[in-house]
Amino acid sequence: MTKNITSQTLQRLPMYLSYLMSLPESRRNGNISATAIAEALGLNDVQVRKDLASVSNGGRPKVGYCTAELISDLGRFLGFDNRDGVVVAGMGNFGRAMLMNKSFADYGFDIVCGFDCDESIVGTEIGGKPVYHISELKGFCERENIRIGIITVPERAAQEVCSEMTEAGIRFILNFAPVHLNAPKGVTIHNENISLTLAMLARYGEQ
Amino acid sequence: MTKNITSQTLQRLPMYLSYLMSLPESRRNGNISATAIAEALGLNDVQVRKDLASVSNGGRPKVGYCTAELISDLGRFLGFDNRDGVVVAGMGNFGRAMLMNKSFADYGFDIVCGFDCDESIVGTEIGGKPVYHISELKGFCERENIRIGIITVPERAAQEVCSEMTEAGIRFILNFAPVHLNAPKGVTIHNENISLTLAMLARYGEQ
Repeated sequence: MTKNITSQTLQRLPMYLSYLMSLPESRRNGNISATAIAEALGLNDVQVRKDLASVSNGGRPKVGYCTAELISDLGRFLGFDNRDGVVVAGMGNFGRAMLMNKSFADYGFDIVCGFDCDESIVGTEIGGKPVYHISELKGFCERENIRIGIITVPERAAQEVCSEMTEAGIRFILNFAPVHLNAPKGVTIHNENISLTLAMLARYGEQ
Repeated sequence: MTKNITSQTLQRLPMYLSYLMSLPESRRNGNISATAIAEALGLNDVQVRKDLASVSNGGRPKVGYCTAELISDLGRFLGFDNRDGVVVAGMGNFGRAMLMNKSFADYGFDIVCGFDCDESIVGTEIGGKPVYHISELKGFCERENIRIGIITVPERAAQEVCSEMTEAGIRFILNFAPVHLNAPKGVTIHNENISLTLAMLARYGEQ
């Protein structure tokens, strides 16, 4: 296994993992060839073989990979057997979806709790996770050493929540609010803009 | 205005538009310089100037761009003054968020209706949009000539919904279900995997 992996390969690895994990259980218990993966994902099979060889040495000629082992190798390489705590601010539809999304765990994330200012939700559980008052966000993140936050609050509240998160030590923010957020150097923000994703898909074929 | 735009520029244009649209109204009514945009987005200002010149001829030395005009130029170039009908299958948290998301309209999309199999939701409205029974999806999309669909149904139902959509003439699918979907040639599917987005953000700085 080589460690000098290209960023192109790195971009494809989650695609392989995502595909393998989406297979029905019966197929996850068997073997799979690089050719089959290449066909399913519309990629060149030489490329797929090369990519997989850089993270797993489980491939055998004419047999392929043991699917479960390949999933585990890809996951380990991508750091998905970490356990990173994540908090979610804003318990609207997106926020609720985040707390109820079981697939975060597969990727090594532990959605710890949600925050909101609506007293009728504070104190309840969503998807088995507690919802605290937004005023507790900063203290909680500091105490629990949380590094990752998801912002799903309305536009007008997003910057304030972002500032509280970064003051509390959060370094990575996934932002669903349709607003540009300012954060100190060293904080990485990804703006999740579904409308834009749809536009790029339907107008430019994701160019 | 040149038409031979590079794909790198094309990838940045929505970022400019998204940033400009996220500015407070007071700033959207004024002027903005390429330098200010570059600074806000952490880009090189020569690059920003070049990118903007390819879609708008409204930039003036020492004045910059009229923000509203630049928004309109970018939007027109990106095709956001289209009116493309979109349907959403699955009225869980993500589906509800899609029907209630007002920003689709800014990008030229008209979320027409939602579909679900839960009789207690069918016949109601979410975000002002009607919810029909999933059995009506195929007929509706054929009749209304819908080309774009969003899938937010559970994993086990996703492939069936995908097949019905494509049989009805849908050509672009945004898929939130954590499963690989098979579709005929000519159909483009984008898998929206929030866990993966978070993993790439928090582990690789979106490399």
